[in-house]
Amino acid sequence: MTLRGYTTPRTPSGRAGLVPAPPWHYVGDFLVVDYWADPDAASSLLPEGLEPFIEPGRCAAVFADWQSCSEGGDELTDPVRSQYKEAYIVTSALLDSEPVSYCAFIWVDQDFAMARGWIQGFPKKRGEVWMTRTFQIPSIAAPAIGPGAAFGATCHARGRELARVRVTLERESERGSVHTDPPIVNVRHFPRLSAGDRERPAVHELVRAVSRDRSVSQIWEGPAALELFDAPGEEHTMLAPVSVARGYRFTFAYTVDDLVTVKELGT
Amino acid sequence: MTLRGYTTPRTPSGRAGLVPAPPWHYVGDFLVVDYWADPDAASSLLPEGLEPFIEPGRCAAVFADWQSCSEGGDELTDPVRSQYKEAYIVTSALLDSEPVSYCAFIWVDQDFAMARGWIQGFPKKRGEVWMTRTFQIPSIAAPAIGPGAAFGATCHARGRELARVRVTLERESERGSVHTDPPIVNVRHFPRLSAGDRERPAVHELVRAVSRDRSVSQIWEGPAALELFDAPGEEHTMLAPVSVARGYRFTFAYTVDDLVTVKELGT
Amino acid sequence: MTLRGYTTPRTPSGRAGLVPAPPWHYVGDFLVVDYWADPDAASSLLPEGLEPFIEPGRCAAVFADWQSCSEGGDELTDPVRSQYKEAYIVTSALLDSEPVSYCAFIWVDQDFAMARGWIQGFPKKRGEVWMTRTFQIPSIAAPAIGPGAAFGATCHARGRELARVRVTLERESERGSVHTDPPIVNVRHFPRLSAGDRERPAVHELVRAVSRDRSVSQIWEGPAALELFDAPGEEHTMLAPVSVARGYRFTFAYTVDDLVTVKELGT
Amino acid sequence: MTLRGYTTPRTPSGRAGLVPAPPWHYVGDFLVVDYWADPDAASSLLPEGLEPFIEPGRCAAVFADWQSCSEGGDELTDPVRSQYKEAYIVTSALLDSEPVSYCAFIWVDQDFAMARGWIQGFPKKRGEVWMTRTFQIPSIAAPAIGPGAAFGATCHARGRELARVRVTLERESERGSVHTDPPIVNVRHFPRLSAGDRERPAVHELVRAVSRDRSVSQIWEGPAALELFDAPGEEHTMLAPVSVARGYRFTFAYTVDDLVTVKELGT
Repeated sequence: MTLRGYTTPRTPSGRAGLVPAPPWHYVGDFLVVDYWADPDAASSLLPEGLEPFIEPGRCAAVFADWQSCSEGGDELTDPVRSQYKEAYIVTSALLDSEPVSYCAFIWVDQDFAMARGWIQGFPKKRGEVWMTRTFQIPSIAAPAIGPGAAFGATCHARGRELARVRVTLERESERGSVHTDPPIVNVRHFPRLSAGDRERPAVHELVRAVSRDRSVSQIWEGPAALELFDAPGEEHTMLAPVSVARGYRFTFAYTVDDLVTVKELGT
Repeated sequence: MTLRGYTTPRTPSGRAGLVPAPPWHYVGDFLVVDYWADPDAASSLLPEGLEPFIEPGRCAAVFADWQSCSEGGDELTDPVRSQYKEAYIVTSALLDSEPVSYCAFIWVDQDFAMARGWIQGFPKKRGEVWMTRTFQIPSIAAPAIGPGAAFGATCHARGRELARVRVTLERESERGSVHTDPPIVNVRHFPRLSAGDRERPAVHELVRAVSRDRSVSQIWEGPAALELFDAPGEEHTMLAPVSVARGYRFTFAYTVDDLVTVKELGT
Repeated sequence: MTLRGYTTPRTPSGRAGLVPAPPWHYVGDFLVVDYWADPDAASSLLPEGLEPFIEPGRCAAVFADWQSCSEGGDELTDPVRSQYKEAYIVTSALLDSEPVSYCAFIWVDQDFAMARGWIQGFPKKRGEVWMTRTFQIPSIAAPAIGPGAAFGATCHARGRELARVRVTLERESERGSVHTDPPIVNVRHFPRLSAGDRERPAVHELVRAVSRDRSVSQIWEGPAALELFDAPGEEHTMLAPVSVARGYRFTFAYTVDDLVTVKELGT
Repeated sequence: MTLRGYTTPRTPSGRAGLVPAPPWHYVGDFLVVDYWADPDAASSLLPEGLEPFIEPGRCAAVFADWQSCSEGGDELTDPVRSQYKEAYIVTSALLDSEPVSYCAFIWVDQDFAMARGWIQGFPKKRGEVWMTRTFQIPSIAAPAIGPGAAFGATCHARGRELARVRVTLERESERGSVHTDPPIVNVRHFPRLSAGDRERPAVHELVRAVSRDRSVSQIWEGPAALELFDAPGEEHTMLAPVSVARGYRFTFAYTVDDLVTVKELGT
């Protein structure tokens, strides 16, 4: 009998795998803050194959409150297997002179999303993420999307707060976040443990994210605040904000079932 | 200097209390299943002061995904202090011949909501709750409110699943959930520990919930399924479904800053 | 039929209550740091009925990794219902000229322990606590109790770190922690919600903890470090360390099934 | 500048990586139940390269309460980064006619341990694990190691209980668990996402665990009970117990910094 499953644990039916096979369908609420970090620090985090952006230090902090499912999957009515929240920081870079977004740090609150991220090259660690929500009726207990509405989000890992943002909506946005506009390029990386071989990862390649069926709601923008906090075993404050541009709030949906290998990397 | 604070820990400023002073403003998404349990079991759970309903065994399972805040509070932009989810079971009863809803079992995922419940007489224990969400743009990864949309919710405590519901929307509902219609009546209960005094609770009173500024979205209804599961230290399966009526999905908002003591209870 | 149970939810059998009836048996590993805070701040946190200690500002930070059970309970072989960790800060005070320890702030990671604390007057909120452990065989991955062994502990609530201690064992301790020596005196406090009555808590009394069958292991002591961190909705940094005395490590067991009301308090 | 780090996220210093570089030092308390599952089911879960054991269906359920650290790491005094618990099921198999233990299912409660497991070929998913503890002083609230002492452990994932064991100590064990005696052989597996390449994992190899500096405490054994429970997205009940042999309780320590690739696998 053959074992099946896109990820382990693999079984004859393939139903126990941590990550169901793609395609993966996603929809989520986003809070994004475009900002600027120290240019040298940002450049120092770029992997082989990427060059510093023309305006080095250009970054964005992204918070997402997701619901996702596989094709024909039953996750949507078993939401413990479909919902997760994550926070990440991208920095702009150049790949063959074209702008790209490189995800330097990311935390997510569910295991299936962490593994799904590793497969796509997102360097996911586990964290807790919270984001102000809207509801479909007016209430003192929720912002109504419109001028003056205040949204907050926080990211925590291992009991330490890592990031906090606040965005106050001002007006509908014509173009949305500028700093997250370039396509995502990540590094897929899977180590070796064999004693003589540890310096040579089993997988180490630059990859470009591919997605389809993308749609986005009306985007709102306004002034924003961003704070990053130190914690043991974390280095994201290398990308601490030097200046903050604008914040954005929107809902976004897409489907992922492909990835392009840009380049095999050395070690 | 005087200590202040609606709950402990109390300090000169009162800002450390687990529960901020009322009023408390709430908005939440609801999934409700009207159902019938064993009449004798339902009656056996009623406290002193309540009589069995004319149709004993009438119950509802309620799942709520809440955001709440105190007056002028900063919780909304620090959502770890404003969001929580809970699940509970009410059974219908009579108070002085009038129909009421008695909350027999309830689980909630945040400490402030647990304590706020105790103050109102909800017998809250800690649990995790998940509920299918909607988003403001179409996506394979979320139901669109309308005929055929499927919603699920689950409740878990101490790593054991306690309840699971599924509601498939069929049509707009004219009157909404029937079984949760009567006002909530709870028992506020706070024990004594003094050795000779333990049989005589410090607080033991029948109370009627009071709320204001209630509003509700369009309610949708449809066929529903409900399962309750045994777990150590739990007895909610006493109210296991014998038959299931209908399920309801809506958003609800209200404000709480009062409570009426109906009757002091003996021990 | 009569409802039974020491706490809610109450049922005919009483088996669903969040807190089983006393006696409660406890055993736990402790890390304690005796230290000094600002005297005025410490005095300002004392409730009615307690006077400042002769050396105001005397405090201790206590971390405990507990296992507990009720009489004849099955919790020990279902450890999700018997294990919990907590952290708290006591400050010394005088009750009728006698030294007592007043618990100003405390966080605990399980609901049953939170409610059990409320019943005894501990102002418990939910938090996560971690503490270095020992094991019964030598390993690089654990300190061996003896000179030079380093222990750490942290407390986190709602994703924010609140406290961090480190104790390096130096020698066996003859008398153990001095600052936690006086008996614990707490305030039992349970609010009212009725609109006209909210300033008058339903329960508000000074109580003295009672315990029996106390035993303690060999105590080790050594130099210690303590840090307290600010967080939204918290005020424990009022008791931030001005100077740190010594740290202690030991295992402690006792049984609780009584409490003495010292004084009914005004509001 | 070069990025460093054994795992992502990689930085110039390498300090942010989810898993610090080996060696990894471990010590943990174990509860093991030797048992027998359905032979066909057990055989059906074996990967390419392994043959059914001479007594197919031979399995063990293992619960471990770990503390671990890297070489010279500061994790021990920051225990949120050193402690974790896990539960797994091994089934016996043959590799080139020699007995081996294959880990079919495993759950762990910390991200760093989950990733460290993937690197060694353990098919880790996230779960919560609880295990009865011992303490260094006598107490009603803890078993004393000796005849009659009862230990329990449970494993839960996504709010569903997956496994429950109970072991009652009877006597010191001469040889310990028989079913976990053969060395562990796993499958390292890392998928591809590229559309045309998804059937061909990037890493898919049979590996044999290597460890050093192993030590074990006195082992105790006695009668045991084991229950496995169904849950959505899980298939471990394929290995439900047909008969249960014995349970074991001990403490174990070792160091890992190597792994042997036995065979590259097809897809």
